[in-house]
Amino acid sequence: MRRAAAMLADLADIGRDTRLGGYSRPVFGGAEHELREWFAAEATARGLGVETDPNGILWAWWGDPGPGAVITGSHLDSVPGGGPHDGPLGVVSALLAVDRMRATGHVPQVPFAIAVFPEEEGSRFGVACLGSRLLSGSISPERALSLKDADGLTAAEAYRSAGLDPERVGPEPRRLGQVRRFVELHIEQGLGQATLGAPVAVAESIISHGRWRISFRGQGNHAGTTAMADRTDPVVAAARTVVDVQVIATARPDARATVGRLQPVPGGTNVIASRVDMWLDVRHPREEVTAELVEAIRAAAEGNAALEGCSAELVEESLSPTVRFQPALQRRMKELLGGDVPTLATGAGHDAGVLSADVETGMLFVRNPTGVSHAPEESVEDDDAEAGVKALATVLAELTRGSEERQIR
Amino acid sequence: MRRAAAMLADLADIGRDTRLGGYSRPVFGGAEHELREWFAAEATARGLGVETDPNGILWAWWGDPGPGAVITGSHLDSVPGGGPHDGPLGVVSALLAVDRMRATGHVPQVPFAIAVFPEEEGSRFGVACLGSRLLSGSISPERALSLKDADGLTAAEAYRSAGLDPERVGPEPRRLGQVRRFVELHIEQGLGQATLGAPVAVAESIISHGRWRISFRGQGNHAGTTAMADRTDPVVAAARTVVDVQVIATARPDARATVGRLQPVPGGTNVIASRVDMWLDVRHPREEVTAELVEAIRAAAEGNAALEGCSAELVEESLSPTVRFQPALQRRMKELLGGDVPTLATGAGHDAGVLSADVETGMLFVRNPTGVSHAPEESVEDDDAEAGVKALATVLAELTRGSEERQIR
Repeated sequence: MRRAAAMLADLADIGRDTRLGGYSRPVFGGAEHELREWFAAEATARGLGVETDPNGILWAWWGDPGPGAVITGSHLDSVPGGGPHDGPLGVVSALLAVDRMRATGHVPQVPFAIAVFPEEEGSRFGVACLGSRLLSGSISPERALSLKDADGLTAAEAYRSAGLDPERVGPEPRRLGQVRRFVELHIEQGLGQATLGAPVAVAESIISHGRWRISFRGQGNHAGTTAMADRTDPVVAAARTVVDVQVIATARPDARATVGRLQPVPGGTNVIASRVDMWLDVRHPREEVTAELVEAIRAAAEGNAALEGCSAELVEESLSPTVRFQPALQRRMKELLGGDVPTLATGAGHDAGVLSADVETGMLFVRNPTGVSHAPEESVEDDDAEAGVKALATVLAELTRGSEERQIR
Repeated sequence: MRRAAAMLADLADIGRDTRLGGYSRPVFGGAEHELREWFAAEATARGLGVETDPNGILWAWWGDPGPGAVITGSHLDSVPGGGPHDGPLGVVSALLAVDRMRATGHVPQVPFAIAVFPEEEGSRFGVACLGSRLLSGSISPERALSLKDADGLTAAEAYRSAGLDPERVGPEPRRLGQVRRFVELHIEQGLGQATLGAPVAVAESIISHGRWRISFRGQGNHAGTTAMADRTDPVVAAARTVVDVQVIATARPDARATVGRLQPVPGGTNVIASRVDMWLDVRHPREEVTAELVEAIRAAAEGNAALEGCSAELVEESLSPTVRFQPALQRRMKELLGGDVPTLATGAGHDAGVLSADVETGMLFVRNPTGVSHAPEESVEDDDAEAGVKALATVLAELTRGSEERQIR
C-alpha cells in the first residue's frame, strides 16, 4: 500500500511558487486543474465513479450514489504561497483510506464518496468555501458568479473557462440531501497537537469568522509638491487602522484580527494614494464578540479617516457563525481511535463547517510540528500522515458498516 | 494656428483608465506607444526629422542636428490614473511653439529639436527620468535593464519589445554633448501659481528627492489559528512605520515624505503576511535634511520591526540632489516674459533636473488651478495653456536667434 508521503510527493511539482515559496494553486487555474485531473485518474484507477457537479465539486463514488451517503474529502486549491498539505492531505488520505478499507475486505454498506471542493481558501474570489456554500445555498449564485479575481475576471468567466455552465451554478438540495455524514481530514493549523504530543485529533468546533473590506478614500496628489499639511492621505488612515486592529484584538481574549491584504490605489511611489482597500479577517469563539470587534474596528477606521480628512467604509464580504461539530460523532470517533485522542477547537474555516448546517460533520486533524499554516513552512511528519490515513479509514469503515446507526445514538 | 487645448483633445481617448480615472500610460505600453506615434506624425507633418535614439528618447529636429543645440520637450508616460497634462502639455506646447515661431518667420540659427523622454514618472520600472538618466550616464545600463515592472518583466525585455536593442542602451556623451540648452514646459504640480495669479512661471529649483524600498519580514501564518501573541506580523510593523513617516516629515519644515505603494506578500485575506514591501518618497530643499529624514525613518522602521519580532531593511532606489537651474537663463527668461512672471521652486522631479548637470536647463510652469497632480483632478485652463505656448515660443525664438550668447552672459 502506498504511503501518504509518497502520494504527496507525486504532487510536489504542481503549482510551485518560485517567487513566494511553497505553492500557489488558485481554483480553476492551471495547477489546480492538474490536481483535479490527478485526482480523477487516481479515483478512476480505484474503480470509483468520478463526476463533476454543476458547482465544480468533484465526487468519486465507491458504488452507486444514493441517500444516506457517507462522504470524505477536502480541497486542492491553496492560498498564494501556501504549504503542500493544506487541502491535499485530506484528499490523499481519503484515497488511501479507500485502499486500506479494501485491503481489509471492507465493502461500504451505504453509499460512499470522496468529494473535492473548489475555492476552499477564497484566495481567488474572496469568499472561502465557495463550492460548499454554493452547494448548500449559503451564498446565492448571483453573488458568487459576480465575484471578481485580482485580474478583474468574474467567477462566472472562471466557471465557464473550467468547462462548467454558470447558468447551472447554485444550490443542489437533492444532491446535498443524499449526504448523511461528512468527515474531513485536515492538517492542523496551529501548535495544539504538537503541544499535546498527539498525531491525530478530533475537531470540536470552528470559531466564528468573517471577512470585511474597508475602503479609505482621500485625495490623490503628487508626493513631491503637496505639503504635509495639505494632504488627505488614505494610506495613513489605513495604517493607523492596521495598528488599531492589532490593539483591539489583543485586548480581547481568544480574538484574532488580521490585515493580510492591503492595496493603495493607484499605488505609485511618487503618488499620494486616492484610495486604499484593506481586507480584514476577524475570528472569535463567540459570534457576538466577533461582531463587537468588527464594530470597534469600524469606529477606529472612521475616526482615523476623519483625522486625515478621508472617509472610510466597511463592507462585510462573508461571515460564518461558530460551528460545533455533532457531539455524538465526535464521541464515536474518539472511541474508535482510542481515548487519548484529544478534541480541539480550530480558528480555521473548512467546508466541513459550512456543511455542518445540513449534514452530520466531523473532522480529523493531523499534527503540524511547526504550527505554521498558509505559508511554505507548514509541515507534516510522514508517520503522522500515516496515522491520519489509518484513523480516517477506521472511522469511515465504521460509518459505512451500515450498522452504526444504533452505535452513534 | 491650433490651440493647445484642441491638440490635447486629440489625445483624450488614449490610455484612459476606467478603473482609476484619468490616464494610465506606462512607458512602452500600448497607450504610450500610440502617443509616440502621434508625436512622430505631428513632427513629420511640420517637416521635422524624427529619430528614436538607443535609449528610446524621441528627437524631432528642425534642420540638421549639431553642436550648440537648443532642445525643448517633455514626456508622454503617466503615473497610473494621472491627469492629461503632466508630460503631454510640454510636448504639445513644443509642437505649437514651432508653429508660432514659423508664423513669425523665425528660423533657428542653431540646431533645434523637440525631445520626448521615456519613463519620466518611473511608474513602470521604479526609477524616474530613466531616459535622461541613461542618456547622461547617471544610471548604468546594467542596473536600468535589470529593473522589473509589476509583472516581473525587465526593462531589457520592454526595450526589446519596443523595437530597441538593449545592447545599445546607455550613456551617449556625444549626443548629449551637442545639447547646449534644454527648456522644458510643464504643468505646475501645486497651488503656487494659482495663489499668485500667474499663468506662467519660471522654475528656480527642484528640491532633492529620492525613493527607497523598505522590506519588512516576519513569519507568514494562518489568520485564524495564530493567536495575537504568537504573531510576527510585518503588516503591523509597516503600518506603524507609515504613521511614523507622516510624523517625522510633518515635524520638519518643508519636508515631504510619502508611502503611496505598499504590498503585503503573499497578500491573502486569511494569511498573516510573511513580508511587506513598502516604497518611500522623501523630499526636502536641502539634501542633508533629506538624508536625515531617511535615517530617522530607517530607525523607526527597524524599531517597529523589532517590536513585532520582524526585521526591516531599507534600500535606496534613487536619489537626486537639489537642482538649482542656471540663474542667468532664469533671469533671461523672466526678462523676455515680463518682470511680473514669478520664480518658483518645485518638489517634483523632471528630466530637466537630471540634465542640468550637463546642460544649461530652464523650466516654464503653467498654472494648475486645482493644485492637484498625479491624479485625474489635475487641470489647466485653455487660456493658460495658450499663455504657456506663447511664453515657450518667445524663449525658444530668443535662444535660437544665434546672437543670444552675449545677452545671457
